[in-house]
Amino acid sequence: MPGLMSRILPKDASFFDTFVELAENIHAGSQALVHMLENYTDPEIQAGAIKALEHKGDNLTHALMTRLNQTFITPLDREDIHELASKLDDVVDLIDAAASRLVTYRVHTIRPGVAELARTLHEATGMVVSAVRELEKHDRVLEFCVEINRLENDGDRLCRALIAKLFDEEKDPIQIIKWKEIIEAIETSTDKCEDVANVLESVVLKSG
Amino acid sequence: MPGLMSRILPKDASFFDTFVELAENIHAGSQALVHMLENYTDPEIQAGAIKALEHKGDNLTHALMTRLNQTFITPLDREDIHELASKLDDVVDLIDAAASRLVTYRVHTIRPGVAELARTLHEATGMVVSAVRELEKHDRVLEFCVEINRLENDGDRLCRALIAKLFDEEKDPIQIIKWKEIIEAIETSTDKCEDVANVLESVVLKSG
Amino acid sequence: MPGLMSRILPKDASFFDTFVELAENIHAGSQALVHMLENYTDPEIQAGAIKALEHKGDNLTHALMTRLNQTFITPLDREDIHELASKLDDVVDLIDAAASRLVTYRVHTIRPGVAELARTLHEATGMVVSAVRELEKHDRVLEFCVEINRLENDGDRLCRALIAKLFDEEKDPIQIIKWKEIIEAIETSTDKCEDVANVLESVVLKSG
Repeated sequence: MPGLMSRILPKDASFFDTFVELAENIHAGSQALVHMLENYTDPEIQAGAIKALEHKGDNLTHALMTRLNQTFITPLDREDIHELASKLDDVVDLIDAAASRLVTYRVHTIRPGVAELARTLHEATGMVVSAVRELEKHDRVLEFCVEINRLENDGDRLCRALIAKLFDEEKDPIQIIKWKEIIEAIETSTDKCEDVANVLESVVLKSG
Repeated sequence: MPGLMSRILPKDASFFDTFVELAENIHAGSQALVHMLENYTDPEIQAGAIKALEHKGDNLTHALMTRLNQTFITPLDREDIHELASKLDDVVDLIDAAASRLVTYRVHTIRPGVAELARTLHEATGMVVSAVRELEKHDRVLEFCVEINRLENDGDRLCRALIAKLFDEEKDPIQIIKWKEIIEAIETSTDKCEDVANVLESVVLKSG
Repeated sequence: MPGLMSRILPKDASFFDTFVELAENIHAGSQALVHMLENYTDPEIQAGAIKALEHKGDNLTHALMTRLNQTFITPLDREDIHELASKLDDVVDLIDAAASRLVTYRVHTIRPGVAELARTLHEATGMVVSAVRELEKHDRVLEFCVEINRLENDGDRLCRALIAKLFDEEKDPIQIIKWKEIIEAIETSTDKCEDVANVLESVVLKSG
């Protein structure tokens, strides 16, 4: 009787909606990062748009936490809600870190391969959206989590190859410092998608 | 009947006192860092004094955790006590990291703007003291948390400007490596004040 | 009557066995790292062997978490099991990070002092094995935790000395970037042993 449940627990149900919003927000962030790296025309404005998504994520997370603290019965364990929100927040923070460093470091041209790493991140955030959308029903969450893990491995391999290439080809240490940090921020964002997957998996197995 | 309460729960009440001590300890740490950066006369001794505060924080935290594990009824959720102590510890760890790197990296003169960043951190730790002092009564905690968030944003902006300037002006990559890390340690310490504020806010809303 | 207990809670008892396996795995990892640094003959194969241990740790942790989510009664607090597994995982992740960077950065010769830092880590992981083996009986856990803390302090001092020496002696900034990261990964792995000790200590004190 979902009808009855939603009348009894209308606020609790909306935790799932907020998680979908948070996941869609990180997916929009990774999309904007891919676009920025592929069409590097106006970094300040492009990074500003990503910063706006990061703020939106902060506000959504903050509202969720406030609601969590004021809700007696929650549809998931309190700590899982906290953990999930906090890991989703980390993903968009690192997308913002990558974008804003392109501006701070006055990067003029994007190194080959970096957009590809961001596309892997974007695939991973897409899987996060899919997994979070299934969270209430539990149906295919584990399947999507396997995909996120696979994409994180891809991202890790790509990142190592990019860093090795950076040290092989770039002779200017200042360029190495800048790009190493940008590449690692994108890779760490993909890592955080895996952390999200781990929480989702744990939630599903627990209630399984 | 606070008199009765304090007779029943004398040990629990002292959790609040220990949090005030921990907060005052990080505030003393940020004060010492500001002083070190503004009067850079004797780095080894100045960093040593900050290291002593870091050790004092460790001991206070350790004693708190031991008490927590041996206390059945606690005035706050067990996990919140753990989280709050651990975030306060992070603040002073990063103050120590900044100070000790000035010594390890044999820094001779302080770059302009870095003391200002430390002053922002010091304002934030002052607000942490104020917020923690109100924690038992709950009165103005949220107000101080808003201030801490504002100061963290200021710190973030200052940090980005300092890093951009560092890459613009400094041509020696080794100086860039050193100063980037020192500046980021101070900024991350301010970040950790925001993490403290988030825990405090959550505690107040939960019991609200 | 341990016989009766093990008949009632056969699955729970195996949490302790898995922790011993995880601890032995990180100890094998630090052993392999010491050997790699002392006999730097075939970095790709040597780092590959460490990567295999990291994967093994992931699989053990994953199996443990799955079991945790499906077990109603656990021999330790659920969160402590989670925390302990996660901190043990961090240790081997950082051992792998150090080893794989030697390959990615195409390091040809090992700087003096780095193997010594790894030997300190190896002593610490040895103490982790000892402490985890005693966890079920509680006997000498705190003693081993004191040792782990002492070794972490040694590691910290060694690390600072190595980094100071690196900046003093190395004039090539790219070498500084590479070695600073490798040295810090080994030191952070020792830090994570201390995090393990903190969880163990907390578990023992709690159960009084």
